[in-house]
Amino acid sequence: MSTTRLLSVNEGVLPLVAELKQRAQELKLAVSTGAAGETVVDAGASVPGSLEAGRIITEICLGGLGTVAIAPSERLARWPFAITVRTSNPVIACMGSQYAGWQLTNEEGEEAYFSMGSGPARALAGKEALFKDIAYADQSETATIVLEAASPPPEALVRRIAHDCDVAPEKLTIIFTPTQSLAGSVQIVGRVVEVAMHKAHALHFDMSAIVEGIGTAPLAPPHPDFLTAMGRTNDAVIYGGRVMLAVTGPAAAARELAEKLPSSTSADFGKPFKEIFSRYEGDFYKIDGMLFSPAEVQVVALETGETFSAGKVDPGLIDASFG
Amino acid sequence: MSTTRLLSVNEGVLPLVAELKQRAQELKLAVSTGAAGETVVDAGASVPGSLEAGRIITEICLGGLGTVAIAPSERLARWPFAITVRTSNPVIACMGSQYAGWQLTNEEGEEAYFSMGSGPARALAGKEALFKDIAYADQSETATIVLEAASPPPEALVRRIAHDCDVAPEKLTIIFTPTQSLAGSVQIVGRVVEVAMHKAHALHFDMSAIVEGIGTAPLAPPHPDFLTAMGRTNDAVIYGGRVMLAVTGPAAAARELAEKLPSSTSADFGKPFKEIFSRYEGDFYKIDGMLFSPAEVQVVALETGETFSAGKVDPGLIDASFG
Amino acid sequence: MSTTRLLSVNEGVLPLVAELKQRAQELKLAVSTGAAGETVVDAGASVPGSLEAGRIITEICLGGLGTVAIAPSERLARWPFAITVRTSNPVIACMGSQYAGWQLTNEEGEEAYFSMGSGPARALAGKEALFKDIAYADQSETATIVLEAASPPPEALVRRIAHDCDVAPEKLTIIFTPTQSLAGSVQIVGRVVEVAMHKAHALHFDMSAIVEGIGTAPLAPPHPDFLTAMGRTNDAVIYGGRVMLAVTGPAAAARELAEKLPSSTSADFGKPFKEIFSRYEGDFYKIDGMLFSPAEVQVVALETGETFSAGKVDPGLIDASFG
Repeated sequence: MSTTRLLSVNEGVLPLVAELKQRAQELKLAVSTGAAGETVVDAGASVPGSLEAGRIITEICLGGLGTVAIAPSERLARWPFAITVRTSNPVIACMGSQYAGWQLTNEEGEEAYFSMGSGPARALAGKEALFKDIAYADQSETATIVLEAASPPPEALVRRIAHDCDVAPEKLTIIFTPTQSLAGSVQIVGRVVEVAMHKAHALHFDMSAIVEGIGTAPLAPPHPDFLTAMGRTNDAVIYGGRVMLAVTGPAAAARELAEKLPSSTSADFGKPFKEIFSRYEGDFYKIDGMLFSPAEVQVVALETGETFSAGKVDPGLIDASFG
Repeated sequence: MSTTRLLSVNEGVLPLVAELKQRAQELKLAVSTGAAGETVVDAGASVPGSLEAGRIITEICLGGLGTVAIAPSERLARWPFAITVRTSNPVIACMGSQYAGWQLTNEEGEEAYFSMGSGPARALAGKEALFKDIAYADQSETATIVLEAASPPPEALVRRIAHDCDVAPEKLTIIFTPTQSLAGSVQIVGRVVEVAMHKAHALHFDMSAIVEGIGTAPLAPPHPDFLTAMGRTNDAVIYGGRVMLAVTGPAAAARELAEKLPSSTSADFGKPFKEIFSRYEGDFYKIDGMLFSPAEVQVVALETGETFSAGKVDPGLIDASFG
Repeated sequence: MSTTRLLSVNEGVLPLVAELKQRAQELKLAVSTGAAGETVVDAGASVPGSLEAGRIITEICLGGLGTVAIAPSERLARWPFAITVRTSNPVIACMGSQYAGWQLTNEEGEEAYFSMGSGPARALAGKEALFKDIAYADQSETATIVLEAASPPPEALVRRIAHDCDVAPEKLTIIFTPTQSLAGSVQIVGRVVEVAMHKAHALHFDMSAIVEGIGTAPLAPPHPDFLTAMGRTNDAVIYGGRVMLAVTGPAAAARELAEKLPSSTSADFGKPFKEIFSRYEGDFYKIDGMLFSPAEVQVVALETGETFSAGKVDPGLIDASFG
């Protein structure tokens, strides 16, 4: 599709990145210049950060191709506010940009660093196999990357990121949000549509057939413990997330997608994420990948006008996780 | 009222029309120049269009005098997303601009074309009797019209539209959204307040007394069949729509309006719209006009501070229509 | 905190004030120049005003540091629309700007005038003791004040306000919204987070510990009688308001705050506000101050990740007040 080639997620986020800088004080962010000349935005480590920062950062993760709102929700009596994400370009926004799929590792001694890179820069580096499946690559002289991390990457890694994106380090913006922070919590729960897209991809559903995505999930209260914070943000999606996808192509495929998409199809479903994680002794890759998906889905098959629904939000498990 | 004379719906939509053009690729629109020099925006025929395009087009229909949002709603368990329209100028926005009241017909042979024109251009042409009742006319050197149609109008009709609006064809923008498209579905369900206004007008309620309007209705899933698609968008309002109007003038008139306004006052109420339409053998004008209104209304009488409520959303009929 | 010193609420509202002027006709406002050269915005006395004007004025009250939305809500079956306020700077936005804490009195004969001043100008004048507690003062060459009043202040008082803010009268904008107006109703209900903040302050909770605030309350229908209108807007918060605050510091203090914060902790809780007000023969200061707070609260203790909930929305009392 010619459209996918021309949309630039890195160009698209420039107004949002400018907004983070201009409103840094209000958003409780620290903006600085790193050793390689890159712009570093601390969204919750040395500064408090904020929910509003998290909202804007989530829109940056989406490559500027989606909207993120924080609003009241009546779905869960004890958790009255939710994050809603909407995009008319779910493949590029969620898979091409938001998905945290770029392994960033620096192994040199005291500068050891590991994080999964998310955001527009991924579509410049194109390091991941999935970019072939979605037939998208960006071209841009600026790059923006978002890291779910407690500190910025070391200089050597920054230079490698810039190199892989083919931009000057001065043209690279690195935004990092600790999992335990307010902005981090929003930014992870804001993956509710992306998680559905990623599972659809794992189920070998034709990515180019997914044309709209809307999702909502409860605002997970941050927790100072990393594992608990990670657990809550995952649970917000797995037990509290609701997603609607509109798809082209055969309605039978849409029906099958809906049936397989909810988290309840996973053998690991039914306990707060932190418990599941402990059960596997902290080995993320032993957890059933099918768990990572929203609780409740609607798949609208545009071919026939049918809506296939499956799964159900589980208020008890959200209470167990957030409570 | 002097205020009604000065607000220009055609000037008001220029930033929104510019947005459609600038974001055409993201919104999956095709923008071209027609034979008469007019700008043509295809929002769902040769291109997919999108929900976000539908949202912006609905704001264009409102003459830039209202906001349209797509957000989660808990009202209907199976249909978790809704469209909300709000305007502090419901008469000009809905009656002077959004109402699809301008009959556009071209009868010449292979260029035969029929559509009901909606949007700001209507207030330049002033072809409809209702403009007298609302005492509104626009003055502008640009015109924008929205058509619920599967193709753009032929050149002769375009020239006639431009002539009736007293603008050069080059200054005319024509946006068309097929009923079956994503943008079309939003754009029609987004008439939830307008439908209430139109029925109030049919009930001879004093238009100048209606000072605020807010309405919400479930996002109808598009359907490839024209009649089913049309049925769903009508049902979204008739069985799923909720509207609040604030009115000046006698509270007794407000009370009477509330009692008569809901769709349930119609003899045709109680079946999915498509069924009703078939019963009358597709003759739209045989359907009881009182059916076209929201399911549930609140009329706030500013004179006395009373709120008059009537009608009720019918989840079963929405399920029957959308399911 | 250095951050609190640099954010300027008076500078922050300039784009919003400009929007009021540019959209004056659409928002049904009257903008004029007063006798001292000040800009006067009438939002509901000689002109109707509007809900949208009220929404923007509430954002002005918040010093440009928060967002205000009007959207559907399912919480109260009979009152389907609500106002939601969100700020990542609740201390400055609500206490430093929005709180109506500046006593403005003119006692000279026919120019007698009394109103409580709200909005950014308060942070220039710094007349109230609470500014010490929140350690905030603004510096700006322009000042904006919002008055819940039915008329603009007399010239002598305008000059005094400008003097106290250390700005030229020509640089002062005065916005007034009668309690009974549409904009007034939004602007008062839009205090739902501020009321929680103010009670937290009265409970001697450490203001600097409150880092996020979100609140929602039903849109109170305006009433032509001042006391009834005032009663409804208070009831919207007291019996219909829900607020989430995120706080730093000891979790024990957060728990105690949550327990004491809801309006149900007040001895005066349980009747529509207007009745309570009559019982005390209209002496506002005899009403238990603890009544002025949202019905339902969540306090998130960032220290431990615990959420403390207390109170409950009371649909019956809202019906009694609005009905």
